[in-house]
Amino acid sequence: MKVLVVGANGKVAKQFANLTQDHNDIDEKAVIRDSGQKSFFDERNIETQVLDIIYNSIEDFAEAMKDVDAVVFSAGAGGSGLDKTVMVDLDGAIKIMTAAEQANVKRFVMVSTFRTGRKQIAKGIENDAPLKIYTIAKNYADEWLKNRTGLDWTIVHPGTLTDEKGSGKIKVGMGNKHGEVPRQDVAQAIIASLENDSTIHKEFEVLSGDEPIDDAIKSV
Amino acid sequence: MKVLVVGANGKVAKQFANLTQDHNDIDEKAVIRDSGQKSFFDERNIETQVLDIIYNSIEDFAEAMKDVDAVVFSAGAGGSGLDKTVMVDLDGAIKIMTAAEQANVKRFVMVSTFRTGRKQIAKGIENDAPLKIYTIAKNYADEWLKNRTGLDWTIVHPGTLTDEKGSGKIKVGMGNKHGEVPRQDVAQAIIASLENDSTIHKEFEVLSGDEPIDDAIKSV
Repeated sequence: MKVLVVGANGKVAKQFANLTQDHNDIDEKAVIRDSGQKSFFDERNIETQVLDIIYNSIEDFAEAMKDVDAVVFSAGAGGSGLDKTVMVDLDGAIKIMTAAEQANVKRFVMVSTFRTGRKQIAKGIENDAPLKIYTIAKNYADEWLKNRTGLDWTIVHPGTLTDEKGSGKIKVGMGNKHGEVPRQDVAQAIIASLENDSTIHKEFEVLSGDEPIDDAIKSV
Repeated sequence: MKVLVVGANGKVAKQFANLTQDHNDIDEKAVIRDSGQKSFFDERNIETQVLDIIYNSIEDFAEAMKDVDAVVFSAGAGGSGLDKTVMVDLDGAIKIMTAAEQANVKRFVMVSTFRTGRKQIAKGIENDAPLKIYTIAKNYADEWLKNRTGLDWTIVHPGTLTDEKGSGKIKVGMGNKHGEVPRQDVAQAIIASLENDSTIHKEFEVLSGDEPIDDAIKSV
């Protein structure tokens, strides 16, 4: 399966790239923002394409998806400003969904945030406007994916990401208490989602846990 | 018809309030953010309710809508910051739509911006991030209203607003060349939209023009 990863140079996505080395069924095509990010992927024999989620068009992305079977959206503005959060996490995500529809690539895995939704948006207004904006952006991107596209979506809601080595075990489900999870385990959960069509039209949290990742993903 | 105006203290909405004085069929209930804004409405014998679109809940707004027949959304963050734009123009608008659905108030008139949509979002990335964020916010609010609610919506897209006295004549339609329009004429177009159910499920630009407002609105 050829998988276009948008935001391929991010920390979760780089773990994903590493894991594809041991997964012959997953063939990554990495979308990077500038060619300076290329060497990491060259070393791993992963095809790259330079595209910018803000500046390139839907058509550019649809063209890049012509030869792929699935899209993983793992881009995020991070701490680069509220304007970028809206342009990347909300509008950018919806651009990529629209491109996938144009290119007729149905399978779409979204890396979301731990909690979206109204209750979460209502929190932290005074103390943390950036978090609120981020939550709004991710929320409406998820809503769009679920309700406004015909894509075969899966939405992954990871806990607080750490750089620890993955344990290979996670907890899934919705409404869990907040916790941490290594990026490597999240990347593994994304691969397992791509490998299991039972995750289509499902969303679930991913936290450190006791269940082997494949079993957990098959259970969602 | 009792009409809840959200963002009642805005410049277009104040023109609307003035015009209701001559329209016995329109009975305004003004939602204002703080009680210091109350005197303008008291002088015009218009009922007020203090609610904040960011801090108050969907339930608070639904409660305020219990006795109304229609909602006009005319709130906007204006120049108060990108975070407020996302909280008011996007998330706030969707909160009010959800409240209207909860309160079973079907009629909903949205005061949008002149142009939304993908082509417009793609413009001005480098030169005007705030305008781009504003356009994204308004765009997805409009999209939500049109496609994710069961409301009897009308979307008004005014040109650049001026404080000139209204001429009573406008141009409507979509895809017009950009131009100006007095706020008073926009307010009159909102009233005409409320009075004409033929505007349900329609969106149209409002610019200065040659056609009497009532005739123009009936033609959309």
